[in-house]
Amino acid sequence: MPAVPMQGKREIMDYSERGYGDGEIGWGEKPGVVVVDFQRGFTDPAFRMGGADMIDRAVDRTVEVIEAARRAGFPVAACAMGYQSVEAMPYWKIAPLREELFEGHPSVELDPRIAAAKPDLVITKTAPSIFFNTPVAQFLVKQRVDTAIVTGCITSGCVRASVIDAFSLGFRTIVPEDCVGDHEEEPHRANLRDVERRYADISTAAEVIAGFERLHNSAARA
Amino acid sequence: MPAVPMQGKREIMDYSERGYGDGEIGWGEKPGVVVVDFQRGFTDPAFRMGGADMIDRAVDRTVEVIEAARRAGFPVAACAMGYQSVEAMPYWKIAPLREELFEGHPSVELDPRIAAAKPDLVITKTAPSIFFNTPVAQFLVKQRVDTAIVTGCITSGCVRASVIDAFSLGFRTIVPEDCVGDHEEEPHRANLRDVERRYADISTAAEVIAGFERLHNSAARA
Amino acid sequence: MPAVPMQGKREIMDYSERGYGDGEIGWGEKPGVVVVDFQRGFTDPAFRMGGADMIDRAVDRTVEVIEAARRAGFPVAACAMGYQSVEAMPYWKIAPLREELFEGHPSVELDPRIAAAKPDLVITKTAPSIFFNTPVAQFLVKQRVDTAIVTGCITSGCVRASVIDAFSLGFRTIVPEDCVGDHEEEPHRANLRDVERRYADISTAAEVIAGFERLHNSAARA
Amino acid sequence: MPAVPMQGKREIMDYSERGYGDGEIGWGEKPGVVVVDFQRGFTDPAFRMGGADMIDRAVDRTVEVIEAARRAGFPVAACAMGYQSVEAMPYWKIAPLREELFEGHPSVELDPRIAAAKPDLVITKTAPSIFFNTPVAQFLVKQRVDTAIVTGCITSGCVRASVIDAFSLGFRTIVPEDCVGDHEEEPHRANLRDVERRYADISTAAEVIAGFERLHNSAARA
Repeated sequence: MPAVPMQGKREIMDYSERGYGDGEIGWGEKPGVVVVDFQRGFTDPAFRMGGADMIDRAVDRTVEVIEAARRAGFPVAACAMGYQSVEAMPYWKIAPLREELFEGHPSVELDPRIAAAKPDLVITKTAPSIFFNTPVAQFLVKQRVDTAIVTGCITSGCVRASVIDAFSLGFRTIVPEDCVGDHEEEPHRANLRDVERRYADISTAAEVIAGFERLHNSAARA
Repeated sequence: MPAVPMQGKREIMDYSERGYGDGEIGWGEKPGVVVVDFQRGFTDPAFRMGGADMIDRAVDRTVEVIEAARRAGFPVAACAMGYQSVEAMPYWKIAPLREELFEGHPSVELDPRIAAAKPDLVITKTAPSIFFNTPVAQFLVKQRVDTAIVTGCITSGCVRASVIDAFSLGFRTIVPEDCVGDHEEEPHRANLRDVERRYADISTAAEVIAGFERLHNSAARA
Repeated sequence: MPAVPMQGKREIMDYSERGYGDGEIGWGEKPGVVVVDFQRGFTDPAFRMGGADMIDRAVDRTVEVIEAARRAGFPVAACAMGYQSVEAMPYWKIAPLREELFEGHPSVELDPRIAAAKPDLVITKTAPSIFFNTPVAQFLVKQRVDTAIVTGCITSGCVRASVIDAFSLGFRTIVPEDCVGDHEEEPHRANLRDVERRYADISTAAEVIAGFERLHNSAARA
Repeated sequence: MPAVPMQGKREIMDYSERGYGDGEIGWGEKPGVVVVDFQRGFTDPAFRMGGADMIDRAVDRTVEVIEAARRAGFPVAACAMGYQSVEAMPYWKIAPLREELFEGHPSVELDPRIAAAKPDLVITKTAPSIFFNTPVAQFLVKQRVDTAIVTGCITSGCVRASVIDAFSLGFRTIVPEDCVGDHEEEPHRANLRDVERRYADISTAAEVIAGFERLHNSAARA
C-alpha cells in the first residue's frame, strides 16, 4: 500500500463538519456486558500475540465492570476465539492465530482473572465479532438488554468488529476505553475515534460502573 | 477521549513481529464484486456527507471493475444505505444520516455512474456492512463465489464493516484500494492497514481486472 | 417418498409423554407484530398461488390485530417475498414463485387491506422467514420488543420459518391461529401442532388484541 | 387448537395444481453433510426424549453417509443442542430439554456411532437449526460446498429448521429420508412433504452415497 500524507487537524474538523460524532447515544434501561477475546493467547506474554500493558490494564478494569454488573443483576457474556482445524477457520493473515488458536490449546483459555469473575455465558467464536455466528445476541435479546457494554481486545480487531455488530443489531453501544486494549496505541486510538464518530459512546470503567449502580437503584425504587 | 502519544515506526514492527499480515490470501476460483454505498449521499457534493476527490476517483475505478466483471461473467452486488423511519434505524451518531438517508430521498439513489454499470443485484441496507441482514451472501453463495472484491465508501465505516463480514462469512477478501474512498486520507489508510493485517489482501483496480481476465480465460480453456 | 401408515392418537400421546408442549410461554412486556407474505401473489385469486378462504379470513383478522397494535403503541413489520432475478433466488421448487415473484410484479404488492393498515416497516425478503437476512430483528430489538406475534401465510411455509426464527432470536412467540393461513387445512393444522409443541403459544386474534389492551393499560397506569 | 377436518387427496392435488413441488433441484459440484442433533438425549432410550426405531435406523444410515463423504473428500459437520443455563436458552416448551440439555450432561454427547465416524466439525448449537448462530455456514462456504445433505433428528423439529436455513443460505438441499427420524411417523412424513414441495429434494442414503462416488470419480478424471 503506497504511503499517503497525514493531514493532521483538518481531518478531525472535516468529519465533524459533515455531522459525524453528533450527540451522544446514552444509556437505555438494561445493559449487558460483552467481553471479547480476553484469552491467554492475547493476555499472556507466553504467547506470540500475548502481553501488552494496555491489554493487561484493560483486563483488570473489565473484572471491575463484570463484578459491578453482577451486583446490579446485569448479564455478562465472554468469548475466546478458537478453532477445530485450519479448514474450519476463515482466511486469517495472522500466523500464530493459524498455528495455535485451536480448541484445547492454552491460548484459547480465558484469562484467569476473567474466568474467576464468572461471566454468565462463555462461548468460543470463529470470527472477529463476538456476535457473528454465536448465541450472544439471542442471550441478550432474551433478557431484554438494550445497551451493550463492549470490553476486550484487540481494539483494532475483534473489538471493532463487535462494536459494529452490537450497533447493527439495534443495541445502544458503549465502549469503556480503559476496558479495551490493543498491541499498540495508534490503532487503539484510531479505532475508538472511528467508532465514536458513528456507532458508540466512548466512556470509562468508572462511568460504566456508576451507570450500573444508578440503573440498579432506580429499578429498586420502582 | 484523551490524547495518546503516537508511536511511529515501532507500531508497525510490533504488529509484524507478532505475526500479523503474514502471507497473502490469494484468489480462489470465482470472484464476485460488492459495491458499498456509492450513493449520491456520499458521492455528490450537494449532500453534507457527499463529495471527496478520493471517493470520486473510487467510483470511476469501480465502474471499470464492474464492467470487467460483467465481461468475465462474475456477479456484482451493490447497495445503498436507506431507512423508512428513525425508528427503523440503529443508533447512528451521524446527523445527516439521521436526517436525510430515507428511502425515496435523492441521497439514497445510487451514483449515476454505478447505476449505469448495471449491477446484478441492488439492495438497500440498514447497517454498515453490505452483508448484515441483507441477501448479498445468499446471492454470492448460490453462485459459488469464493472471493469477494470489496469496493465502495466510506473506507473507515461501511467498507471496513463489509470487509470484516466478507472474511467472517468464509470468503477470500480483496480490497482494491483505488476502488474505496473516505472523507479523509488518514482513516482511509489506517483502516486499510488494520484489515490488511488480518482479513484481506489490498490490491488495485488494475490487478483485480487482470485477475478477472486470467480466471475467465483459464475457465474458457478448461 | 413411500407412504407411511398414519398412527392416529398414539402420536399425540407419545409427544406429550416425552414432555413436549409443556406449559405456556406467556406474554412479556412489549409485543410487536410481524406480518408474513400477505401479498397479492398469495391473497388474490388472480394469481396461481393466490386465493384461499382461510388466507382471506386471516388477512381480515390480521388487519384488526395491526389496528389494535397501533392503538396500543406496539410496532408492526410486514413483508412480501420478491426477487430481482432468478440468480438472486434460492432453489425454489415452486413454479409460479420462480416465474412471477419479481420486484415490480403485482404478485409482490402487499394485499391492499394490509397496506391500508400501514405497518411501520415494510420490507421485501428473499427467504421463507421474515427475519432471514432482513432488518426486522434489528427493528424489534431497537424497540425492546420481547414478544413476537406472528401472522401471515403460508402456515406450512413462510409462517413456520418465521416462527422458528422468532423463537431462535430469543423472543416469546405467539401465533394467533386465525391470523395465519394455508392453501389447505391439513398442513396448516400439522404445522401449528409442530410449533405449539416446541416454540410458540397458539392463540387467537381476539386474545392477542386483549393482550395488547391489557399491556397498554397497565403501562398507562405505571 | 380446535380440530379441523382432514381433506385427504384434495390437499395434495391442490398444492401441485398451484405449482408446488415442481421439478428437482439436483446436485451441484460439491456436497457437504450436516448431521443434526444425533446426540444421546435423542438417540438413547435412557433419556426421556431418546429412543425411537426410526431414529436408530437413521443414525446407522447416516454413519454410512458420513463414511462415504469421507472417502470422497466431502466435509461433514455435526451438532448437538446444549445450553449453559436456562437464561441462555430460548423459550422452549419441551420439559426435558429445559431440565437436562445442559453442556456436560450425557444427553448432550454425540451418539457414539456418530462420534466414531469423526465428523470434521462438531459444534454445540442453541437454536433448532444447525446453521442458526453457528459457524457451520462459514465452514461450508469456505470449502465451496454448494449442496447440503441434511441428516439427523427430529424431522419435525431441528431437521425442518435446518433444511429451511440450508435453502435460505443459497445451497441446494437434499434430505435422505432414511437418514432423518422423528418420535412419530406422521410428523416425519408431513414435514418431509412440506419441505419437498418447497425447499429440498427427498432422497435416500443409497442415492446420496452413489452421488458422492459419481462426483468423486468425475473429479478424479478431470
